[in-house]
Amino acid sequence: MNPLVGIIMGSKSDWETLQPAADTLRKLGVTYETRVVSAHRTPDLLFEYASTARDRGIEVIIAGAGGAAHLPGMTSSKTTLPVLGVPVQSKALNGMDSLLSIVQMPAGIPVGTLAIGQAGATNAALLAAAILANKYPPIQQALDKFRRDQTESVLAHPDPAVTSSQS
Amino acid sequence: MNPLVGIIMGSKSDWETLQPAADTLRKLGVTYETRVVSAHRTPDLLFEYASTARDRGIEVIIAGAGGAAHLPGMTSSKTTLPVLGVPVQSKALNGMDSLLSIVQMPAGIPVGTLAIGQAGATNAALLAAAILANKYPPIQQALDKFRRDQTESVLAHPDPAVTSSQS
Amino acid sequence: MNPLVGIIMGSKSDWETLQPAADTLRKLGVTYETRVVSAHRTPDLLFEYASTARDRGIEVIIAGAGGAAHLPGMTSSKTTLPVLGVPVQSKALNGMDSLLSIVQMPAGIPVGTLAIGQAGATNAALLAAAILANKYPPIQQALDKFRRDQTESVLAHPDPAVTSSQS
Amino acid sequence: MNPLVGIIMGSKSDWETLQPAADTLRKLGVTYETRVVSAHRTPDLLFEYASTARDRGIEVIIAGAGGAAHLPGMTSSKTTLPVLGVPVQSKALNGMDSLLSIVQMPAGIPVGTLAIGQAGATNAALLAAAILANKYPPIQQALDKFRRDQTESVLAHPDPAVTSSQS
Amino acid sequence: MNPLVGIIMGSKSDWETLQPAADTLRKLGVTYETRVVSAHRTPDLLFEYASTARDRGIEVIIAGAGGAAHLPGMTSSKTTLPVLGVPVQSKALNGMDSLLSIVQMPAGIPVGTLAIGQAGATNAALLAAAILANKYPPIQQALDKFRRDQTESVLAHPDPAVTSSQS
Amino acid sequence: MNPLVGIIMGSKSDWETLQPAADTLRKLGVTYETRVVSAHRTPDLLFEYASTARDRGIEVIIAGAGGAAHLPGMTSSKTTLPVLGVPVQSKALNGMDSLLSIVQMPAGIPVGTLAIGQAGATNAALLAAAILANKYPPIQQALDKFRRDQTESVLAHPDPAVTSSQS
Amino acid sequence: MNPLVGIIMGSKSDWETLQPAADTLRKLGVTYETRVVSAHRTPDLLFEYASTARDRGIEVIIAGAGGAAHLPGMTSSKTTLPVLGVPVQSKALNGMDSLLSIVQMPAGIPVGTLAIGQAGATNAALLAAAILANKYPPIQQALDKFRRDQTESVLAHPDPAVTSSQS
Amino acid sequence: MNPLVGIIMGSKSDWETLQPAADTLRKLGVTYETRVVSAHRTPDLLFEYASTARDRGIEVIIAGAGGAAHLPGMTSSKTTLPVLGVPVQSKALNGMDSLLSIVQMPAGIPVGTLAIGQAGATNAALLAAAILANKYPPIQQALDKFRRDQTESVLAHPDPAVTSSQS
Repeated sequence: MNPLVGIIMGSKSDWETLQPAADTLRKLGVTYETRVVSAHRTPDLLFEYASTARDRGIEVIIAGAGGAAHLPGMTSSKTTLPVLGVPVQSKALNGMDSLLSIVQMPAGIPVGTLAIGQAGATNAALLAAAILANKYPPIQQALDKFRRDQTESVLAHPDPAVTSSQS
Repeated sequence: MNPLVGIIMGSKSDWETLQPAADTLRKLGVTYETRVVSAHRTPDLLFEYASTARDRGIEVIIAGAGGAAHLPGMTSSKTTLPVLGVPVQSKALNGMDSLLSIVQMPAGIPVGTLAIGQAGATNAALLAAAILANKYPPIQQALDKFRRDQTESVLAHPDPAVTSSQS
Repeated sequence: MNPLVGIIMGSKSDWETLQPAADTLRKLGVTYETRVVSAHRTPDLLFEYASTARDRGIEVIIAGAGGAAHLPGMTSSKTTLPVLGVPVQSKALNGMDSLLSIVQMPAGIPVGTLAIGQAGATNAALLAAAILANKYPPIQQALDKFRRDQTESVLAHPDPAVTSSQS
Repeated sequence: MNPLVGIIMGSKSDWETLQPAADTLRKLGVTYETRVVSAHRTPDLLFEYASTARDRGIEVIIAGAGGAAHLPGMTSSKTTLPVLGVPVQSKALNGMDSLLSIVQMPAGIPVGTLAIGQAGATNAALLAAAILANKYPPIQQALDKFRRDQTESVLAHPDPAVTSSQS
Repeated sequence: MNPLVGIIMGSKSDWETLQPAADTLRKLGVTYETRVVSAHRTPDLLFEYASTARDRGIEVIIAGAGGAAHLPGMTSSKTTLPVLGVPVQSKALNGMDSLLSIVQMPAGIPVGTLAIGQAGATNAALLAAAILANKYPPIQQALDKFRRDQTESVLAHPDPAVTSSQS
Repeated sequence: MNPLVGIIMGSKSDWETLQPAADTLRKLGVTYETRVVSAHRTPDLLFEYASTARDRGIEVIIAGAGGAAHLPGMTSSKTTLPVLGVPVQSKALNGMDSLLSIVQMPAGIPVGTLAIGQAGATNAALLAAAILANKYPPIQQALDKFRRDQTESVLAHPDPAVTSSQS
Repeated sequence: MNPLVGIIMGSKSDWETLQPAADTLRKLGVTYETRVVSAHRTPDLLFEYASTARDRGIEVIIAGAGGAAHLPGMTSSKTTLPVLGVPVQSKALNGMDSLLSIVQMPAGIPVGTLAIGQAGATNAALLAAAILANKYPPIQQALDKFRRDQTESVLAHPDPAVTSSQS
Repeated sequence: MNPLVGIIMGSKSDWETLQPAADTLRKLGVTYETRVVSAHRTPDLLFEYASTARDRGIEVIIAGAGGAAHLPGMTSSKTTLPVLGVPVQSKALNGMDSLLSIVQMPAGIPVGTLAIGQAGATNAALLAAAILANKYPPIQQALDKFRRDQTESVLAHPDPAVTSSQS
């Protein structure tokens, strides 16, 4: 079955951050592909990937990058598919540069930006699933179940400190 | 016809920022509704709005708020619809507080965040249209035309300074 | 005896930050309860907790959360009890996101915000005690003693470096 | 009748920021006094004010200051009354310096910090009222009414743009 | 005569910031061309411009952009010509987003970044001239004269306040 | 009489910020001179000024500059006189760049840094006077009087709002 | 012999940061004393220390503190001696809070602020020595020698990488 | 053969950051020299180095420094050679101080600034090579090959997670 979501990232080292996106999609039964696509080192590949994604059946693109993170925005410039950006935590500035480089897009080319780091990757997968769920009922059902389980998991452990003594 | 997009905002004064979202959706022929919903002053309304939106036919929610901006994240906590957040430029901190309050969501509840201010509102509309376009071909066509026109508009005026003299 | 202070936090992992709040209240003889309440993953529980706290005898709520920290503000939106917010130090942005998400509340719904991390948790307990002290004389006495002891503890060790040689 | 709340500020120019605190207390029927007390230019007055406030019947102190804002923290160092800090928006750094100088107190001396600027002043008054409400039922009633009115005021104007046309 | 320097910018509104670059090059007798090239709205034009610049005789490219400023970095990804980036002062974040989006390039694709705003544009021209000066003696002479004149201009007005009285 | 304090600044436009330094010294009866010395445009003058200041009788140097503000630190590198730095509020970054460029000196070459803008200039003069006061009793007396007057001026106007009505 | 410099700090844990100040003064033959003085936990001691320092022969005070660092500014409010502030690197915000709390003093009460951390402590000692040097020739000589040695130490090791191979 | 590029740095400890600049130049066959030159501790050496570099055959200077990083800007003030600045990651502020101290140069004296840390050092070398390439064909060829190899290296490893399972 063709993948519905494309997960791309600026370098192999970003995989540690993006892996939760893949894991979450798999849990939800959403097909995906993963690819290293560097906006700066392989710009032609980026253009090819973005401009052919729709024809290959991709419906949402998740793009993660760090520092002067141009991958999500440039991907969006070459497709009208929804593009979700994940700022990778950078070494010196902790991802503040990645976040601003991704989220502060000028009017005309949108990138839906998630949180810095792995939490953002997980949420990019959940948002991708929410986007697909309007069209694919099984994904809606999987997403609903994921959210219910998540709520129950918190409710099941109400006490932050089992060993904490209270008055 | 029922609206497909719900545009909500934390206060009436946020309308100046969110209006470009409404304008852009209208240009693209996407139906929408607008509503003031304050996470802090009308929390019950927020819960009701978010939990009933899907049943009313809404497929994407755009939520704008400023300062300690809790509206987008709390909306997402009560629905599995895609929620797009627009940080309103705040008075003291220029929207940096709004941005971080919206984008830094923990894993589990996603908000696709756009740029601070009106550019973000325009892009929230474009991203909402991109989300709907996978399911509604006329929106895809409108979006494709919008992007082509936008590109041609830049290409039509290549010289930044008509009166600038060059060597 | 019913607890006077409710300590809630967005996830079990926040307990490391909030524990000093519990420890300090216990030292001061102030009764309290602790509970994991996630604004995003258990929004209904949050609403129930906040709206019933007063009837259960709670007089002050301490709420700690990190990142896009919505717990303190949303708790305050559902009660008129004093709500004190403790920003948990986040991974990427060191708690600056937590701080701004908690402190920058719009006019109408207050959260008294303390410092990022454990110092903030300790001070939330001290401020809760100060709030209660106006009504409960034993808490006033305990607080006065805590502060006197604290001052004396500093005065008892005036030399920062016992082994430092001076001219 | 003796004032229950003391509103102090670092300079006469801070009154523009603090005035909403006074206005809000007056609406709620909470007695208060206002005073210019500069931590830096009148340190002895600050010490006298803080150490005698309780004996004069003050139960909550609201302290506003800007830049290297030491007034709230130093006031708290000389009293066990609850001290609420309002960061005044500073000229160069927009109040980020004021906020950090007030909120980042070390463990031991608490300041409940509100938002930068007038929103913070309004909320300081609301939090002061919430603190007093546990002991003074009429203040509780006034606060409940204030919050209900506020909610109804938002609900009464659901449409952000009366003249906006929708699909 | 063919232009040696290409000045490109993300939108017509950036011309106000970039104009000092053109003015400075003209003063130094360095030929240049100006062009609006939007990384996001005209990505194909950007690729064409960058990949053909060398063949058209361009030896240095100055690229200005604001917000999530991808123009300088993406230009550099498509050419080995020296690319100099000028961060345009953005509305909400004052150009901090522009600066980080331009300067924090990953290893492999360089952008020499100048200051935010018009000072950066002037200096981009001076740096372009310095780059060309190693190869073109007349530019070296013009640059040397520019710098001497600049120094003499400061020395000619040593007193900051002609009317200031001193002891 | 020879000036005891040298006030230098990076450009004529910095005079607006530095003038309060001159005004304050004059009030205190401290002799001074003012001079435009640009670290970047007149580096040789900077070296000459700094290395000859002591021999001309200068005992404290106040140096103001904005942006990448190198004047205070480079002055200190060429003299062992006390150098006080005043960060000028810059256009884009509001003086945060000026502040960090001045205050974050590496171990070995000190600059005593004051607040951004005119408040910093006034305080640079007061600190210069305090430095000189240990050696020149009349300056000590003038400084003591200045501080007493300042305190009394605050005490004389205790009410921030003469027209404010209180309960 | 009486100490000329007083080194105070907000807590015993700040000694690690301040120790280089003591070490540097000792190298320069400048007498000093060290003392833990907490603005918040021992405000009365702070007032006593600051107001009696001059009479005890102290001519310069070095004050180090972290977070909402009020010690340097409050010390300066109680004396006209030169006060030098050293921002201690804080846990969450890396000393940015300490720096702004110390340097952004309002006009009227000066604090000469040094860099965050140990470099700032070393430089506080060097600036204190420079202040004293105008009055005490032996300190001037020691300072001149310190600076000459420092310069020679850099010149003696011109090659950053003894083992680095060069073309 | 004389070096074409001078790599200077503020202290021996900056070598760890600057070494990739040297390594990259060596790979490209560009001759270089390395030298510790401290703006603050050896200002005369800095002036001599900068003002004689051109006569010794240097065509580009790479200058790295941290904190209040004055080396690149002051070098540029004494030469019209292209100066490239590398911000060294500082201890407290992660290089944000270094970046702003280098990049925010006033109009008149340019510094082409690269990213914070080792990525910036590598890119400074690549930009230096690009500058020289216009004049020296073998460097152009080496640079072209470096970029082609870099692109191919990314393309050769398209899968970020060889062991990752996909749907």
